[in-house]
Amino acid sequence: MADRASGQAIGFLMQQGIENADCLSLAAGFVDPDTLPVDLVRQTTAKLLGESVGKSVLQYGTTPGSDSLREVFRAYLAELENDSLQVESLPLNRIVLTTGSQQLLLLVSQTLFNPGDICLVAAPTYFVYLGVLDGVGAKAIPVTTDENGMCPEALDAELQRLSDEGQLHRVKLVYVVSYHDNPAGISVSAERRPRLVDVVRKWSDGQHIFLLEDAAYRELHYDGPVQPSIFSYDLPDDDGRQHVILSQTFSKSFSPGLRVGVGVLPQELVKPVLDLKSNEDFGSGHLSQNVVATVLQSGAYRRHVSLLQQSYKGKRDAMLAAADEFFSDIPDVTWLHPNGGLYVWMTLPETVPTGFDSELFKRATHTDKVMYVPGELCYPSDWDQRPRNQMRLSYGVLDTEGIREGMRRLASAVRAVV
Amino acid sequence: MADRASGQAIGFLMQQGIENADCLSLAAGFVDPDTLPVDLVRQTTAKLLGESVGKSVLQYGTTPGSDSLREVFRAYLAELENDSLQVESLPLNRIVLTTGSQQLLLLVSQTLFNPGDICLVAAPTYFVYLGVLDGVGAKAIPVTTDENGMCPEALDAELQRLSDEGQLHRVKLVYVVSYHDNPAGISVSAERRPRLVDVVRKWSDGQHIFLLEDAAYRELHYDGPVQPSIFSYDLPDDDGRQHVILSQTFSKSFSPGLRVGVGVLPQELVKPVLDLKSNEDFGSGHLSQNVVATVLQSGAYRRHVSLLQQSYKGKRDAMLAAADEFFSDIPDVTWLHPNGGLYVWMTLPETVPTGFDSELFKRATHTDKVMYVPGELCYPSDWDQRPRNQMRLSYGVLDTEGIREGMRRLASAVRAVV
Repeated sequence: MADRASGQAIGFLMQQGIENADCLSLAAGFVDPDTLPVDLVRQTTAKLLGESVGKSVLQYGTTPGSDSLREVFRAYLAELENDSLQVESLPLNRIVLTTGSQQLLLLVSQTLFNPGDICLVAAPTYFVYLGVLDGVGAKAIPVTTDENGMCPEALDAELQRLSDEGQLHRVKLVYVVSYHDNPAGISVSAERRPRLVDVVRKWSDGQHIFLLEDAAYRELHYDGPVQPSIFSYDLPDDDGRQHVILSQTFSKSFSPGLRVGVGVLPQELVKPVLDLKSNEDFGSGHLSQNVVATVLQSGAYRRHVSLLQQSYKGKRDAMLAAADEFFSDIPDVTWLHPNGGLYVWMTLPETVPTGFDSELFKRATHTDKVMYVPGELCYPSDWDQRPRNQMRLSYGVLDTEGIREGMRRLASAVRAVV
Repeated sequence: MADRASGQAIGFLMQQGIENADCLSLAAGFVDPDTLPVDLVRQTTAKLLGESVGKSVLQYGTTPGSDSLREVFRAYLAELENDSLQVESLPLNRIVLTTGSQQLLLLVSQTLFNPGDICLVAAPTYFVYLGVLDGVGAKAIPVTTDENGMCPEALDAELQRLSDEGQLHRVKLVYVVSYHDNPAGISVSAERRPRLVDVVRKWSDGQHIFLLEDAAYRELHYDGPVQPSIFSYDLPDDDGRQHVILSQTFSKSFSPGLRVGVGVLPQELVKPVLDLKSNEDFGSGHLSQNVVATVLQSGAYRRHVSLLQQSYKGKRDAMLAAADEFFSDIPDVTWLHPNGGLYVWMTLPETVPTGFDSELFKRATHTDKVMYVPGELCYPSDWDQRPRNQMRLSYGVLDTEGIREGMRRLASAVRAVV
């Protein structure tokens, strides 16, 4: 298992971060340190540990996690979905708390995949999840994705192709980051959300294909319409089956250091996921879960998210303004305008590769002192058609001045190699 | 993977706990709620989040965990080993922080075992680890164990037998809970510690066999001599190799709700374990790690452990006194006298089985309202010679009155079925 998990892009990237510590980082996917809820966590912890529940939050929790957080999360999810009835009737046992959403992604993958099985992914997709797929020996197959997210028609066509090749039985999962995705800032459009569920259901005739909706950036929404989740369209089919696994996290919207993620699972996945988690750790941090439950219950969490949205919106605007200022006169450079999340996705001329070994990466890190994430990491590494000329630019960590300066440096590097 | 992880004893046991919630529990391995460091964690968190480091502890940490905790732990380990020189020169990168020590046990197992590989375990052993071995498809083979812990001669003989059968290449690990073990309260004697390392080294000629020293109960030591770890005898062999993986945890000695475990790995295991952990969660809770670092640095942790030792010693004495009071007139009932840990191991007449399906278990839970852990769970389930007439009795959760009452009830149930 360790062999399969080795050599992941995140490792190279972190190594590059260490080796190029003098660079401004447009690479790190960290959240903004200035908006971390230090006072709120201090007050909440003091309150929790000053009450009669104090001892219980320092004791072992249970493998699925704190009942109080799962209950409060269910009510909060009902609000997010604007459809309290369906979500409020969700059995609590379908909600599982994990060590960040990363652990949920892994547990679901360990549950569904045998080595050689297939996962369909957006192109581009979250590169860390490609590493998870490698780790469990699954093959990632890219599905055409545009500014409205993964194309249902392309997903359907790919499943048809796999069926024609007798490979349909190896398909276990479709993975989609549904809101302001990592790496491209793309959201799946309202119109496509139910259609993705329909396609998965259509091809689940002889077997059960799941769709893992990674909604990590759901709450980092700055403008444009608010979409219900893909999960919300997953009504039980004729056999009573459901298909969508919803993954959310408090890392981006609150604090990564607490490591609290949450999954909503179709009933049949609950036991196998908990069996694995029980072997893994008996349950994630109980104190952290109770801190999150308290702020979610009190309304302080919602106020914090509002502040975050304002702050990130300003940083998103700063990055887009700097892109206009420094890149608009470089021919054939384009970028997406995200409504949320932490990333701007930039495409360079096709003749300009951006990978770790490229002239651009070396020039950027050594001369101009700025780091980015090479876009090619965000496609399956065995896909020969993967674009080599893209970059993921994050406005998460730097302040607006740092963002502008980083973009200025990056444009200088790009100009030097174009 | 989920299939292999299913059907573990811990699941049955927790279910029994839920179904028999009206029972006094001598089963739960939880720590004493009255000694949880509520005030200390409250003050420490307030301090941490009031300082300039506040933001960093709410941010992502790194996969191996907080440098500050790893540094303070190294100094603390040097103290524990009474041999500061060797431990203080340990490279920091050999220390890995996990979500409780359970995650370390799993990551090491995922690293070392392919399905069909072999792990040698004490008999009895920690039943949750037997579940981990099932989960990775490894076979557990019991090694004769007495009141001085696993017998080196028996380990040597078992390895000889496996070698004779051409199975030596499948042996990857020897698992030993070295201090006041779960379930029997047994410590490996001083004289056997270096000899276990010698046996592992002797049979590592054609391959590399590791010894996983689970020192979870190391600090719950109440009387008798203090032993250095087995790890401390693991000097590099002629090829510079080391064999012992040391696992410790702050769950038993401080707070399980923080989920902070720590492992010291031979150099060659560092990268594979971190590759797996990176896919799992990018690192465990950063806030929790910093809380532990702060109390370990300030000395507050040591004072807390002293209080714990006094409290548990009183409870251990209460359980042994109650055993004398209620069981000494029942023929052929014996029990061990632990110097530490949380458990008393009791053996009934051979004709009295203790399993979930036994008359005794039903009588105890339904009539006398007391729960225990059936001893047979603590042996490999495919071992046809496993004893069926033992019980693990925990004095962790109940107070001294509850312990006495629990033992009174249990004796009543035993008398009824003998």
